[in-house]
Amino acid sequence: MTLNNVEIKNFTFDKLVLESGKVISPVTIAYETYGVLNAQKNNAVLICHAFTGDSHAAGFYPGEDKPGWWDDMIGGGKAFDTDKYFVICANVLGGCRGSTGPSSINPQTQKPYGLDFPVITIGDMVHAQKRLVDFLGIEKLLCVAGGSMGGMQALEWAALYPQNICSAIPIAVTMKHSPQQIAFNEVGRQAIMSDLAWNSGNYYNSDSKPERGLAVARMVGHITYMSDKSMEEKFSRNLKDKEYSFSFTADFEVEGYLRHRGGTFVERFDANTYLYITKAMDYFDVSQSLPFIRNGFVNFLVISFASDWLYPSYQSENIVKELKMKGQEVTYIEIPSTYGHDAFLLEVSGQTRIIKHFLNNIYEK
Amino acid sequence: MTLNNVEIKNFTFDKLVLESGKVISPVTIAYETYGVLNAQKNNAVLICHAFTGDSHAAGFYPGEDKPGWWDDMIGGGKAFDTDKYFVICANVLGGCRGSTGPSSINPQTQKPYGLDFPVITIGDMVHAQKRLVDFLGIEKLLCVAGGSMGGMQALEWAALYPQNICSAIPIAVTMKHSPQQIAFNEVGRQAIMSDLAWNSGNYYNSDSKPERGLAVARMVGHITYMSDKSMEEKFSRNLKDKEYSFSFTADFEVEGYLRHRGGTFVERFDANTYLYITKAMDYFDVSQSLPFIRNGFVNFLVISFASDWLYPSYQSENIVKELKMKGQEVTYIEIPSTYGHDAFLLEVSGQTRIIKHFLNNIYEK
Repeated sequence: MTLNNVEIKNFTFDKLVLESGKVISPVTIAYETYGVLNAQKNNAVLICHAFTGDSHAAGFYPGEDKPGWWDDMIGGGKAFDTDKYFVICANVLGGCRGSTGPSSINPQTQKPYGLDFPVITIGDMVHAQKRLVDFLGIEKLLCVAGGSMGGMQALEWAALYPQNICSAIPIAVTMKHSPQQIAFNEVGRQAIMSDLAWNSGNYYNSDSKPERGLAVARMVGHITYMSDKSMEEKFSRNLKDKEYSFSFTADFEVEGYLRHRGGTFVERFDANTYLYITKAMDYFDVSQSLPFIRNGFVNFLVISFASDWLYPSYQSENIVKELKMKGQEVTYIEIPSTYGHDAFLLEVSGQTRIIKHFLNNIYEK
Repeated sequence: MTLNNVEIKNFTFDKLVLESGKVISPVTIAYETYGVLNAQKNNAVLICHAFTGDSHAAGFYPGEDKPGWWDDMIGGGKAFDTDKYFVICANVLGGCRGSTGPSSINPQTQKPYGLDFPVITIGDMVHAQKRLVDFLGIEKLLCVAGGSMGGMQALEWAALYPQNICSAIPIAVTMKHSPQQIAFNEVGRQAIMSDLAWNSGNYYNSDSKPERGLAVARMVGHITYMSDKSMEEKFSRNLKDKEYSFSFTADFEVEGYLRHRGGTFVERFDANTYLYITKAMDYFDVSQSLPFIRNGFVNFLVISFASDWLYPSYQSENIVKELKMKGQEVTYIEIPSTYGHDAFLLEVSGQTRIIKHFLNNIYEK
């Protein structure tokens, strides 16, 4: 069941021409794989991570006791059953967890790119993943799946490479970023860029990093990932101490939680990557480019969560309508949950039942 | 109809003992009045402002062309009819628009208080308002009304001084701040306190003020004041220019709007007041202290707005349940609106019809 001794691998290729027309060269993509690619090479599933995720989707690195971010869903007998499927997960282009991004060394200057890194799109991330999939010798993926920004990549795969995927599972996502979603991202960016330590993106060799701004950005994010109800259930108005402090320390447990999550986030995430990836999400809009049936027949499983107010169910319903109008095969389910947007990480049993069945149907076809 | 030559007045009293046990001395409250107090002194309505509001609720200052913040609702023939009622509005204790707050001079040091200003509560704001109402010779207010934090004050008046009010109109509010509401406030505070220019609250005599942090806090606020739908209607994915910039400038109109609103806010609002008032809101909880019928009979009109997700309708429904259980007279209406929390400022006709009728009934009794 448990995947042990998981390891991170690198795939480097010469160059990628971006949707903006700019070029990144060379490009390294950090990735992991779980399970075995079969001889026909038709059992490969690409898992796409959300905003702050990475290639470590499942299993344990040697000697570590914290598994990958979707370990509940990936492994022997799990939703993405590694006894049956060959599962791939790659850190996105622009990331800070092994793949080329703004914190990587710019070969032209031998210094970190910083803001010289070109602005990327979800499409660019997918083009880079396609190169990895080619390199692995897979012509057609059984499935591309992911939640939140991972779902954007799944939809973008369907838009850009419909011939190269049998199915897609976009979870808790939209086909175009709404003004409210853009607004929350812009606040995060402004929090970072307002931090004097950000220094126009040149902080990699400085003692002072834009940690305060990045922590504030992360705190805003955390509120949007939970629901009003899940916050009530988890924190209510519980105090850290017995009485109001009548000061600006964290009186309430929810304040302590946010400060803690903000503080730990800055240890593992790069502020410039925060800017680049949020911009890619804001640019995301496949409402005009989802595949027509003539371009390839993709089976879709669209999943949303009832209490998700960041990517509300009506946006998934719009994806379903759009796909059906274009003749695609779509299954849609709204899973009841109080967890808000975080549900795609937490509602394991509901997702497992549906995804297992869906993948099996595609695979046996 | 229009109130011209409105002027701001000051009422100063010796000292106020706060709920924390600390003392502020002296206390000045800036206020305005509209209409005429009748001989029986039974036609006075106290309007309480929201978070970033002030005493200038209605009419025009001499020579100015921008009216008070609730001018659509206060004036001759309007919801709060100044041909009939004597309307009072005061800047809250802790504010930065004339009333004593952290930017006021501390008489002990002859410098601005900064963080030496004691942490205040909504109850403290109400105690200060009670002193003003006493000073104006009014024993019993016909009504206390307000939206958002103004609604908290209306509820707190009912909790603290049920004998001194005939009615209360809490609009778009809750009887206790929820963890989500606390969380959004905490993010705003963290944005300010993370700004190096904040300097532990000592910036009044500095060239550099915590404007970046305050602007970020305000941007978060603006998102919560609108609804997903009102943002879609106002901005959609409209671009400021024709194409994506592939940079970190404001591509989308919604980004430009937030930057603009953040930028203008810092010109009129004090960052420390932002901290103090949000803390007062977070401490707000009258769930245990709303009046029983034996302590005074208050007529309540509770109003909520369908698309308000910051103070959702279920929270108003909880106020209604609590009041009814305690034998109070309550009228409740949820007004259909797409404006989100801002609806209490924008849904004029719906509120006018209901409030006019409600006040008339109380006044004629």
